[in-house]
Amino acid sequence: MINYNPKDWFTFIFRLHKADTFNKLWPLMLSVAIFSAIISFLELHVFKLSKSDYVSNIGMMHSLLGFVISMLLVFRTNTSYDRWWDGRKLLGGLTNVSRNFAMKIKALQLPEEETRFFEYGIPKYAFALKEHLREKKYFGKNSFLIEVKKDKHIPNQVATSMISKLYELTAKGLISQEQLIVLTQDVNQFTDICGGCERIKNTPIPFSYSVFIKKFIFIYVLTIPIGWVFSLGYYLVLIVPFILYVLASLELIAEEIEDPFGEDANDLPVDTICNNIEKHVEEILGK
Amino acid sequence: MINYNPKDWFTFIFRLHKADTFNKLWPLMLSVAIFSAIISFLELHVFKLSKSDYVSNIGMMHSLLGFVISMLLVFRTNTSYDRWWDGRKLLGGLTNVSRNFAMKIKALQLPEEETRFFEYGIPKYAFALKEHLREKKYFGKNSFLIEVKKDKHIPNQVATSMISKLYELTAKGLISQEQLIVLTQDVNQFTDICGGCERIKNTPIPFSYSVFIKKFIFIYVLTIPIGWVFSLGYYLVLIVPFILYVLASLELIAEEIEDPFGEDANDLPVDTICNNIEKHVEEILGK
Amino acid sequence: MINYNPKDWFTFIFRLHKADTFNKLWPLMLSVAIFSAIISFLELHVFKLSKSDYVSNIGMMHSLLGFVISMLLVFRTNTSYDRWWDGRKLLGGLTNVSRNFAMKIKALQLPEEETRFFEYGIPKYAFALKEHLREKKYFGKNSFLIEVKKDKHIPNQVATSMISKLYELTAKGLISQEQLIVLTQDVNQFTDICGGCERIKNTPIPFSYSVFIKKFIFIYVLTIPIGWVFSLGYYLVLIVPFILYVLASLELIAEEIEDPFGEDANDLPVDTICNNIEKHVEEILGK
Amino acid sequence: MINYNPKDWFTFIFRLHKADTFNKLWPLMLSVAIFSAIISFLELHVFKLSKSDYVSNIGMMHSLLGFVISMLLVFRTNTSYDRWWDGRKLLGGLTNVSRNFAMKIKALQLPEEETRFFEYGIPKYAFALKEHLREKKYFGKNSFLIEVKKDKHIPNQVATSMISKLYELTAKGLISQEQLIVLTQDVNQFTDICGGCERIKNTPIPFSYSVFIKKFIFIYVLTIPIGWVFSLGYYLVLIVPFILYVLASLELIAEEIEDPFGEDANDLPVDTICNNIEKHVEEILGK
Amino acid sequence: MINYNPKDWFTFIFRLHKADTFNKLWPLMLSVAIFSAIISFLELHVFKLSKSDYVSNIGMMHSLLGFVISMLLVFRTNTSYDRWWDGRKLLGGLTNVSRNFAMKIKALQLPEEETRFFEYGIPKYAFALKEHLREKKYFGKNSFLIEVKKDKHIPNQVATSMISKLYELTAKGLISQEQLIVLTQDVNQFTDICGGCERIKNTPIPFSYSVFIKKFIFIYVLTIPIGWVFSLGYYLVLIVPFILYVLASLELIAEEIEDPFGEDANDLPVDTICNNIEKHVEEILGK
Repeated sequence: MINYNPKDWFTFIFRLHKADTFNKLWPLMLSVAIFSAIISFLELHVFKLSKSDYVSNIGMMHSLLGFVISMLLVFRTNTSYDRWWDGRKLLGGLTNVSRNFAMKIKALQLPEEETRFFEYGIPKYAFALKEHLREKKYFGKNSFLIEVKKDKHIPNQVATSMISKLYELTAKGLISQEQLIVLTQDVNQFTDICGGCERIKNTPIPFSYSVFIKKFIFIYVLTIPIGWVFSLGYYLVLIVPFILYVLASLELIAEEIEDPFGEDANDLPVDTICNNIEKHVEEILGK
Repeated sequence: MINYNPKDWFTFIFRLHKADTFNKLWPLMLSVAIFSAIISFLELHVFKLSKSDYVSNIGMMHSLLGFVISMLLVFRTNTSYDRWWDGRKLLGGLTNVSRNFAMKIKALQLPEEETRFFEYGIPKYAFALKEHLREKKYFGKNSFLIEVKKDKHIPNQVATSMISKLYELTAKGLISQEQLIVLTQDVNQFTDICGGCERIKNTPIPFSYSVFIKKFIFIYVLTIPIGWVFSLGYYLVLIVPFILYVLASLELIAEEIEDPFGEDANDLPVDTICNNIEKHVEEILGK
Repeated sequence: MINYNPKDWFTFIFRLHKADTFNKLWPLMLSVAIFSAIISFLELHVFKLSKSDYVSNIGMMHSLLGFVISMLLVFRTNTSYDRWWDGRKLLGGLTNVSRNFAMKIKALQLPEEETRFFEYGIPKYAFALKEHLREKKYFGKNSFLIEVKKDKHIPNQVATSMISKLYELTAKGLISQEQLIVLTQDVNQFTDICGGCERIKNTPIPFSYSVFIKKFIFIYVLTIPIGWVFSLGYYLVLIVPFILYVLASLELIAEEIEDPFGEDANDLPVDTICNNIEKHVEEILGK
Repeated sequence: MINYNPKDWFTFIFRLHKADTFNKLWPLMLSVAIFSAIISFLELHVFKLSKSDYVSNIGMMHSLLGFVISMLLVFRTNTSYDRWWDGRKLLGGLTNVSRNFAMKIKALQLPEEETRFFEYGIPKYAFALKEHLREKKYFGKNSFLIEVKKDKHIPNQVATSMISKLYELTAKGLISQEQLIVLTQDVNQFTDICGGCERIKNTPIPFSYSVFIKKFIFIYVLTIPIGWVFSLGYYLVLIVPFILYVLASLELIAEEIEDPFGEDANDLPVDTICNNIEKHVEEILGK
Repeated sequence: MINYNPKDWFTFIFRLHKADTFNKLWPLMLSVAIFSAIISFLELHVFKLSKSDYVSNIGMMHSLLGFVISMLLVFRTNTSYDRWWDGRKLLGGLTNVSRNFAMKIKALQLPEEETRFFEYGIPKYAFALKEHLREKKYFGKNSFLIEVKKDKHIPNQVATSMISKLYELTAKGLISQEQLIVLTQDVNQFTDICGGCERIKNTPIPFSYSVFIKKFIFIYVLTIPIGWVFSLGYYLVLIVPFILYVLASLELIAEEIEDPFGEDANDLPVDTICNNIEKHVEEILGK
């Protein structure tokens, strides 16, 4: 994720940031500019059509469908943003659960080696989840405390280790039944957060919407020059690419933030969050 | 559900996917094209109406109602998408509850045969729910561990079996009262998820909206050629079907994703989720 | 509630269903048609106004306010739908709580007569709630198990009976303290659901919105013919009623689904839900 | 709150209810009518401007900003309605918690005098909260059971009394530890509801939006006659006030329902809810 | 936060409050006014373009994109407001948890010195969180009761102190196991609230949206005079800055309330809330 000062308008407007959709769209915008130029040339100079021809009123369709396309893009923007924010909440929840769990372990005043187990295990869950969401395998540093098998779901293995440890400590009489219940619920929350992130990652918006919006934008933009040439002439070469820029940017940004756990410029600061969890757990449980 | 790369614009725009609404709509679009042609012919050549006739201003109505129809379609899209995503959350919840429940069973270190019971029972619930939502009966593999009766609610029978087993284990002293409470809550969550899915499946949006939106689209599209023929002539044969395509596609996709547990192209990956639950539970509880 | 196949466009468009708002609106539409005809006649033939008169531009106001009226109707539609869906969730919750509660009672393996008490009491709560929401009194079949007084809140009496029974069973040593807590929470959920339904039933949207929207639609539609007559002539007799149909339908459907527990065509299937609860509880607790 | 039948269109449209925003707006509407008349007179007869003057096209700005103003008003309407409904949910929650708490007290079969304490204390909380939200002090009837100090937060004092009583009963052995936990959670819910209501009451929408929307409506409406006079002449005297009525009504209703605990016509039925709580608690705990 | 009477329209409209976006925007508005004047002069008097030139129809683009820009600004407004309100809920939650926690401590009738610990510690958490969110360090008054280290997360240290105290009291036999569970959950809620606030503070809306909206507003407003000059002449000097004021105000207010814990005019009343917590806790736990 990019940290920025939202109040710095000047650089936003004039500098071209690498996350700017313009970087991705300019080849398409150029093609559309050329296309518009060709259409204009053909209609104005080859076929010599005029404002009284039927073709000049095709813009009526664009006005009528203008509402639909903008509402559809807002629908797309809203749902993508909701996933992104939902993902942020889940990662925030991970921080909270990790801290709360560590505080309780601290308060139990377990023997030194057991405390070390959790000081190691809690951040390990966060890192394992991060790599799991990026489809990488993670085994963690000094992994002798919790051994994970490569071909199984790694966050689950870390969680199972922690639950087993809790039951073992209960059996030893270091944790009471009541405390066990509370601590188990915390570990369950780890798994719930993992499930929530997997859900966001594995479920893009329904295929039909994705296809439909792209087809709609494409046909909409490409038919604009046909009717508008009689009013705007060669200015179309600037205007049509700008319209494309606006409509396609919304779709592009939506696509990017829809899966917020990757390493794109707009994705969530998963690495920072994991490092913070490690730092906080160490502060709480450290000697 | 179709897995796809949302960033691959090219194939989206030019290839005709089987989930594309165009496949379902082309007969209707063709009819509307013919209808537009007939209207145009009648008005232009038979009745010889001209732009100065009142009929040419009927488009004023379409502009005025353009807001309403697009907002209505967005309302439809939002509510359908919310159900679809709600269904996805419920299935994600099923995965989480199954995993958490399995981890707790694992930690209890029950006798081998009792662990087998849950290794069998937890995924069975998921599969029973899947078939229940598709209105099929499911009895499951090696069903001697949990016997279900055909004419009763099958997921409920599986859940009741698991709860009874838990109380039996408590009576035997293998589970404490406190653990029983926690484990019972997990089984209740299975039933809550089942109830949530049944709610989505059995409650389409109110009948009146469904009728009203369809009637509105139908009348709206069919009256467009009447007024627009004087501005657009025979281009209507292309334009009116395109407007129909846009408006009807939104309604069609909404209809499809409204009930997300079926086997349509856009429906949720229920089978994959069930298989994952089976796999994860086996990983956790397996020998 | 009407069960229907949302994909059956043909019957939706051409058949006139009894839940169709057209049935309620046609007298109003007819009046508006006549009104439009009179206005047209007066302006065109009596006062002989022409397009150059100021009055012909009143449509500018309708364009400007067209956004506001459609957004307001969408606001109305959204809030009504949210209540309707909220009500559906509450009834779904009732099903879930009933099932979960029954499963726990089953697992407790209480003496036969105590099990019968709950087999009778759980569905009784659902039926009592249904009649309570429809402002009828309900005493239930074989009501000797739970006696209710006519002039008191009946669902509350059923819930109090069940809680008292649970405490009685605890005193007898048939239920442990821990189980009592869990079971009491379930009964509390019954009361929470009752409160939620009462909230929806007793709180229509603020009076001012209801008045304002109706006044706005009324004035908006009745002033349309004044300005449009110069563009559309006697076609107004068809067009103005259609605009009224669209705007008023949205308000009418919203009114109907706002209170979803009644017996209107679009209301929730309260009876079916109650019968299902009875059936499921019987399946779980029955001999 | 006004109880009304939302289906009674006739009286809504033709009768002027006291909660109608027209009552508050007519002086402003009259001023705007006079202002429009003056502008029209000046432009048409004093400066003798004509349609070909630049000033006649100022309406282009109004069309462009028409979207923005209507979306802003819908944003305002939505947020106010959400608070109002949120407040309703909190009061509904108060009813539920009061009932559930009373049922549990009933089931505990405490000595007569202790039951009286709660029969008195539970509704007292509701009444204290009501007066607290209306910034009045409340000491309640026969207040010797719970004494409150004038200068402290009164609902908090009632809640503290109830919690202290519960701990006292536990110390006496009349309530078990497990029951204490459950009952304490109910009292906490009282405090949570109080906090939720205070939040709604003390936090109007950000000052900047409130200022901006009012300034925007004001400038927008007052500049309409400048450009429209050439199309609409003295009809502006009717049209501009109507536009003001629509836009300002939405802002006015939003202001009124934003703080839903007062005694305005649209505010929530706080008194009825408190009386119902008293009645229900008495039904449950009464002899 | 500014306390104001939302019904006082007069001062809102005519007085220029310091939180008014006009204060921040007037330099930009002035620049745009000058820019518009230059464009008008160039087009009208230097290049002597006329209404029949293609350039005069550039406004078609602004109409088409008018929907998109206003919907985008509403999206921006909604998401910012949601964060602001979410932040308010979290702070309201802090008040509730503090009160509830204090009431329970009160009811435990701990020895005087232990009660003092919590009377000191609960408000300390609130103040520490406030300063933490404003990136200041806070050590609190009479800080010998809870010592905090400068370089570690201060709210976490306060929470850990409270949890440790609770476990210490349990070890001493002053708190039962059951009470410990309940009290620990309250302290966990403190940490959850802290995490929620950190999430809002550290996650502005995705960078791409922020850039895109600003670029879009900038290009949109600056191209308006090019096409509109033929219709509006030098009136543009007033109109274009007004359009800028409307569009940019929405973005500016959104920016300000997006991070609601600062000391801007629209930010939440964090100081008041902290002081209230201190006052209420003192009222409850004070001698």
